[in-house]
Amino acid sequence: MLAYRLIERKRDGGRLEAGEWRALVRAYVAGHVPDYQMAALLMAIFWRGLDRSETAALTEAMLMSGASLPKAPDGLPRVDKHSTGGVGDKVSLVLAPLVAACGAQVPMMSGRGLGHTGGTLDKLEAIPGLRTALTLAEASAQLEHVGCVLMGQTDEIAPADRGLYALREATATIESIPLIAASIMSKKLAEGLDALVLDVKRGSGSFLPELDRVLELARLMIDLGAERGTTVIALVTAMDRPLGRACGNALETEEAIHALRGDGPPDLMALSYALGAEMLVAAGAAGDEEEARRRMEIAVSTGTAAAKFAAIIEAQGGNPSVIDDPAILPQAAECELFAAPHRGFVAAVEPRIVGRGVVALGGGRTRVEDAIDPSVGFVITAKPGDWVDASEPLATIFARDAAGVALGRAALTQAIRIADEADLPLPLISHRISASGVERYSRT
Amino acid sequence: MLAYRLIERKRDGGRLEAGEWRALVRAYVAGHVPDYQMAALLMAIFWRGLDRSETAALTEAMLMSGASLPKAPDGLPRVDKHSTGGVGDKVSLVLAPLVAACGAQVPMMSGRGLGHTGGTLDKLEAIPGLRTALTLAEASAQLEHVGCVLMGQTDEIAPADRGLYALREATATIESIPLIAASIMSKKLAEGLDALVLDVKRGSGSFLPELDRVLELARLMIDLGAERGTTVIALVTAMDRPLGRACGNALETEEAIHALRGDGPPDLMALSYALGAEMLVAAGAAGDEEEARRRMEIAVSTGTAAAKFAAIIEAQGGNPSVIDDPAILPQAAECELFAAPHRGFVAAVEPRIVGRGVVALGGGRTRVEDAIDPSVGFVITAKPGDWVDASEPLATIFARDAAGVALGRAALTQAIRIADEADLPLPLISHRISASGVERYSRT
Repeated sequence: MLAYRLIERKRDGGRLEAGEWRALVRAYVAGHVPDYQMAALLMAIFWRGLDRSETAALTEAMLMSGASLPKAPDGLPRVDKHSTGGVGDKVSLVLAPLVAACGAQVPMMSGRGLGHTGGTLDKLEAIPGLRTALTLAEASAQLEHVGCVLMGQTDEIAPADRGLYALREATATIESIPLIAASIMSKKLAEGLDALVLDVKRGSGSFLPELDRVLELARLMIDLGAERGTTVIALVTAMDRPLGRACGNALETEEAIHALRGDGPPDLMALSYALGAEMLVAAGAAGDEEEARRRMEIAVSTGTAAAKFAAIIEAQGGNPSVIDDPAILPQAAECELFAAPHRGFVAAVEPRIVGRGVVALGGGRTRVEDAIDPSVGFVITAKPGDWVDASEPLATIFARDAAGVALGRAALTQAIRIADEADLPLPLISHRISASGVERYSRT
Repeated sequence: MLAYRLIERKRDGGRLEAGEWRALVRAYVAGHVPDYQMAALLMAIFWRGLDRSETAALTEAMLMSGASLPKAPDGLPRVDKHSTGGVGDKVSLVLAPLVAACGAQVPMMSGRGLGHTGGTLDKLEAIPGLRTALTLAEASAQLEHVGCVLMGQTDEIAPADRGLYALREATATIESIPLIAASIMSKKLAEGLDALVLDVKRGSGSFLPELDRVLELARLMIDLGAERGTTVIALVTAMDRPLGRACGNALETEEAIHALRGDGPPDLMALSYALGAEMLVAAGAAGDEEEARRRMEIAVSTGTAAAKFAAIIEAQGGNPSVIDDPAILPQAAECELFAAPHRGFVAAVEPRIVGRGVVALGGGRTRVEDAIDPSVGFVITAKPGDWVDASEPLATIFARDAAGVALGRAALTQAIRIADEADLPLPLISHRISASGVERYSRT
């Protein structure tokens, strides 16, 4: 009866009190509210929305449905980054060791790929032996000893979110800004963070393509963080083309390793430094952006960033020699160059088509239970706005077999548009959002 | 995946094709679409609505999910009535035998009471031995021999509707006009009807209190009937006060028996004749309203209507002597008069409060699985607009014990408002709606 009355009220545009959210989430996790009532409520929320205080109460209720990481005992600053997801986005693999090498704790809890976007866990698991299913106790111990952990969401963290997220995926209620914000923040706040930096993507390959909705989501998460004493900063970044060159799990891990040595593609380097600087400053691990950038550049050039990644990999059971010899990553049986069909400007490299191409090659999932092949994917060197000659190589396809190569060729033919003119791509980083408001980003 | 895409489209205000409704309903009945997806879709329908052709396709799909009664073999006109539900509404018990006694087949499939409204099945089952759970084969045979059957919705009829209705009750998606229309019509069309008369209630005790929504529902059902060659006529009737005097299962059955002999309360008699005339004319069993009314009056005065009820009761295993001796119905242990607290006009007899009072006495359900006591309830002689003196009896309370009497007294104290002035009650029958439009009702 509780659930019925709450569905009815939300259906009619009313609001639920904090105590009602708590009771509802508790009853749901205990199995006393069936999925079908929750599904109807989720659709009513999709329709009617949640106000700030409702979103905060739902976030809190989901957070409290599980355990949290205890705060760092020695008072080390603790910070994480969350991205709304994209294609070729291997920033987490660069950023977590880099920021940890500069003196902040980074408890990075990530997800798996689904649909056209990749997932950090899948990329990490391309490293032979590496385990991402850590308990909170293991994570705490590793944070203390290594300063960083790269793990999946454990069963202990926000179990209510896990159930609700699965329901949202089945009921077309994912794209609700308050539900997205509550889901992300309930998990991130369980990490005991001092600060959180959000990489909110916009553009055709992102989850919320429109800028106004991206800004709304960022502002909401900043408010939710503030309520619990966590500083949240968001950068709005471009996902109208893949980030970096590699798209596919092992290929992206290899590119991240190069980036940790300073040798990554320029857009990946620039975004990693920009997000890293925000993380270090927001967490209080660096006095200002200049200092943060200087320290990261030193960590990269001296090799301490790469060494930190090796230490993380070793602590999680993986083979750390991958840092010096990326060839131990799974290698695709077939690789083939993809050339420009004619001369012109690269007018688009459509991230959704590239991402779906990786899935078609076997490197992604269409259902949660699908197995993936880490070796396959693309390395796309062409960027929107480039001038290319006919037959000039634009990309390399990595596949299991000749049929895969053909699928990859078909995907790239559709994804990479060559034309007489090209629009300007989105700026890599366009806005910075903090508690004090939205500003145009102008620092790179 | 099918269900997901359909939820998403309806969520965004799109429409589903007839083939999609068929596939969805078939998959749902087969257990391939989980309740949580259907619940999300129902809430999206509640929000976005269904257009005429979608409603027709859903109705058809639900109808086709089960079996139907074959049409009458000898071409007898077949007609039924459906009421949107109210308090004290025992019209079905009067109307079915009365219309059957005038030469039409009446396959009346009814429901149970839930919430403040009563249900025809519960009233019938107050008769010792009477069985309402008939198979379609039993119903067909009885229709042929007796001309009328009073039964519950069997498992054979519209199983999709049964599942969806239970979901709607749990997810606050009952009050959607296209869903209400599709639910009613999928069951009624399975009866192989030539005509259907709708008693759509309005006023504080009805399901849809606003007149415009009542008219919308009626017009939609008329269209749905027309698509399948069934004439549908609707009368808009008053549910701002209980119908007749008796409220409570055995008490209402007794009142219906009196009405079949011409001795019912005036409003019950008037409504039964009006609906019966519509049924007989729409089904082609009478040439016009005059003839229909004359034949019904003869059936009442000569006792053939009461005899028809006896035959139905006997065919369904009940004791037909109840027609001559209503005292064999379950009798409440306690009965007490309820008197006017002071003089004045009866300003209201609130049907919802009366209905909930019957439930409180044990005569109704708050959950589908509740058992009910057929003996309890009220006989309320006061009608809105009556002038009453202090201590004048307004009603009799029938209860199991002294505690029940106290509950009944509390309910009536709240339900019956005595004031210095009284607004005019709603006209018993205000509108008649047919395929040719809405007209003010002016025939009584």
